[in-house]
Amino acid sequence: MSDFSEIEKAAVYRAIAARRDVRSHFIDTAVSDETLMRILAAGHRAPSVGLSQPWRFIIIRSDTTRKAVHASFVRENERAAAAYADERAAQYRALRLQGILTAPINICVVSDETPPHGHGLGRRTMPQTARYSTVCAIQNMWLAARVEGLGIGWVSILDPEIVRTTLQIPAHCEIVAYLCLGYTSGFAEHPDLEEAGWEQRMPLESVVAYESYKPV
Amino acid sequence: MSDFSEIEKAAVYRAIAARRDVRSHFIDTAVSDETLMRILAAGHRAPSVGLSQPWRFIIIRSDTTRKAVHASFVRENERAAAAYADERAAQYRALRLQGILTAPINICVVSDETPPHGHGLGRRTMPQTARYSTVCAIQNMWLAARVEGLGIGWVSILDPEIVRTTLQIPAHCEIVAYLCLGYTSGFAEHPDLEEAGWEQRMPLESVVAYESYKPV
Repeated sequence: MSDFSEIEKAAVYRAIAARRDVRSHFIDTAVSDETLMRILAAGHRAPSVGLSQPWRFIIIRSDTTRKAVHASFVRENERAAAAYADERAAQYRALRLQGILTAPINICVVSDETPPHGHGLGRRTMPQTARYSTVCAIQNMWLAARVEGLGIGWVSILDPEIVRTTLQIPAHCEIVAYLCLGYTSGFAEHPDLEEAGWEQRMPLESVVAYESYKPV
Repeated sequence: MSDFSEIEKAAVYRAIAARRDVRSHFIDTAVSDETLMRILAAGHRAPSVGLSQPWRFIIIRSDTTRKAVHASFVRENERAAAAYADERAAQYRALRLQGILTAPINICVVSDETPPHGHGLGRRTMPQTARYSTVCAIQNMWLAARVEGLGIGWVSILDPEIVRTTLQIPAHCEIVAYLCLGYTSGFAEHPDLEEAGWEQRMPLESVVAYESYKPV
């Protein structure tokens, strides 16, 4: 029934399974413009509500910018750590949660809340679908990067208003993600937070319900 | 630099490029539980903030439920059509925008806004990242379905409160997507909305900026 061979199917499932949120292990190898563009093009192939293509990619290599964003991470990470008690706090502080300065490229992905394309189709009752289209683009980029041998890490421990000011992002764009991108010395077998004992994978069955919602 | 062969890389890029939002062309062929579970497992392999795994999948086969959701689509679609003028309205009414009754399976994907897993990591300054994790799961499912020869269509022209009531979704879960899933007689070469002349693909360069935001 499929126009994908077994080898091709397996490759897609392997990319999905072997993708990691990479925070450490970034290495210095330069990322070529061609490779970067293939990854961005994969994002640009995402589905979008009304074909509105609301994603906007800001490529950041400037040290000044990365240091400003990293400073926001340090502040917000300290606030987050302070909210945990005792052993959990110690465990939190030991986690490596970003590669802003060590990854050669940062990408801020923003979503136009009133995209000029698409004539508003599909956004009347659920306008948030524009942002969701942008997230679909990010997942495409994550998988494309993985098969290119590049890691992506998504940093959410940031004050979005600092990011907005630093990158001159206008009010009609929502800051969806701040990504760190670069070659890596290796992809971990398990998610970092699982390795560190922070949280475990849930069994698939626990998140599947039939015909109506079922509590987890 | 990559542990994916050229054939494997090409397969992932092809899945990304050949994925379509499928609204028509669903066929009657039954979807096996094994296939459905592989697609859901691909979703469950998505990244999630703090390893919170906030996605919940509700599998719907009931005709009664699908008819109730379809009725909401018909109402909201008529309202949407009424908001366009003249030629654009005629063009809108000619579009095929859902396969709720023709696809053998519908999947409502909801996101727990206060997920019990992950200990809140990464959600202090940007709590919306839980929903974004759920959207990453959807894009994984979309790609997995594509290589299995199954189409997915995302219906956003719905009143989410009707969906909530019909599927008994509690207030702490956000309705992220209502998907139609099934085998299809074929995948269109271009997005339906492009084929229909509703909207065109933008050039990649127009959505890429360097070092700071650039208007499209």
